[in-house]
Amino acid sequence: MKHLFRHPTVLALVMVLVTSLLLAAEPTHNAQPTHSAAPTEQTGKSFTVYPIGKVDRVGDRTVIVIDGKYQDGLLGLDQWSHVQVIWWFDRNDTPQRRAILQVHPRGDKSNPLTGVFACRAPVRPNLIALTLCKIVSVKDNIIEVENIDALPGTPVLDLKPYAPGQDSVQKAKVPAWAGPSKQSP
Amino acid sequence: MKHLFRHPTVLALVMVLVTSLLLAAEPTHNAQPTHSAAPTEQTGKSFTVYPIGKVDRVGDRTVIVIDGKYQDGLLGLDQWSHVQVIWWFDRNDTPQRRAILQVHPRGDKSNPLTGVFACRAPVRPNLIALTLCKIVSVKDNIIEVENIDALPGTPVLDLKPYAPGQDSVQKAKVPAWAGPSKQSP
Repeated sequence: MKHLFRHPTVLALVMVLVTSLLLAAEPTHNAQPTHSAAPTEQTGKSFTVYPIGKVDRVGDRTVIVIDGKYQDGLLGLDQWSHVQVIWWFDRNDTPQRRAILQVHPRGDKSNPLTGVFACRAPVRPNLIALTLCKIVSVKDNIIEVENIDALPGTPVLDLKPYAPGQDSVQKAKVPAWAGPSKQSP
Repeated sequence: MKHLFRHPTVLALVMVLVTSLLLAAEPTHNAQPTHSAAPTEQTGKSFTVYPIGKVDRVGDRTVIVIDGKYQDGLLGLDQWSHVQVIWWFDRNDTPQRRAILQVHPRGDKSNPLTGVFACRAPVRPNLIALTLCKIVSVKDNIIEVENIDALPGTPVLDLKPYAPGQDSVQKAKVPAWAGPSKQSP
């Protein structure tokens, strides 16, 4: 056995074996390049989300096309007038953009520097977007909505019907920069 | 070289090498057991989300504790009265529960069978939860909220300030089972 490891082929095999075992032990979701700003050095727990469909335009209509295998999940959605669409800012899915924690909202330098959790910036640690949409129709796996601020092809992660009792409040305070004289953030 | 593979130690080494290479090639997020219902057979794109903090109770107060490295993202949140908290139904994170597409809302068999995208069931393909909360205070990395329907320890993924102009509508239709005579779903 001892002199076997002196054989170059066997030595090479052992080295490849050790390397591949090390690769197998490395969790893939931690294999991001490091970056000076927080929070790319991810050492904790993570969860995996899968697109359930995508945004699309058909002529001047805006639709959400749900993957066929998820279509059963739409049963009864046509009884609601509005849906909260949860989608992914996929154009910004880089460790650098996910590390941004403060912005000038709407890219307007006259707006005060603001935390990404205090505005709706499309850069944030988890690139989750939320848009309240009016439902025009639900047919098979296609939901037509009045409008959505997402480009065609954008992955959709979840749909939640809008229930005024839990999803709205009568009086809400907003900062001056997001006030009624401006568009909401 | 040829007779080298007849040596039992070398043969064993080669077999372990091949196995470990196969393991390394298998994406970990697809390593879920198969299940009869959709959608556990995930073959497409996926995204990774990381907790930015967690829900906690301190006496009779409900707080969201944001990880220190994300604290800069809270700048200006105190200027809003309400925040939409996006959290993860971590107690249901199994392939089986993520494969459920229809439920009787609120576990009440008298409610009609409903798609998970047409109610707020805590089982759904992506275990994303959304709760609108009144902000009591924001101090350092701690947000005190009036209430949240999440257990202590629940991972929080994102915070979005509530802007009535984009997050609410004046008139919304809801199905009978979710109507004003009952709690919202």
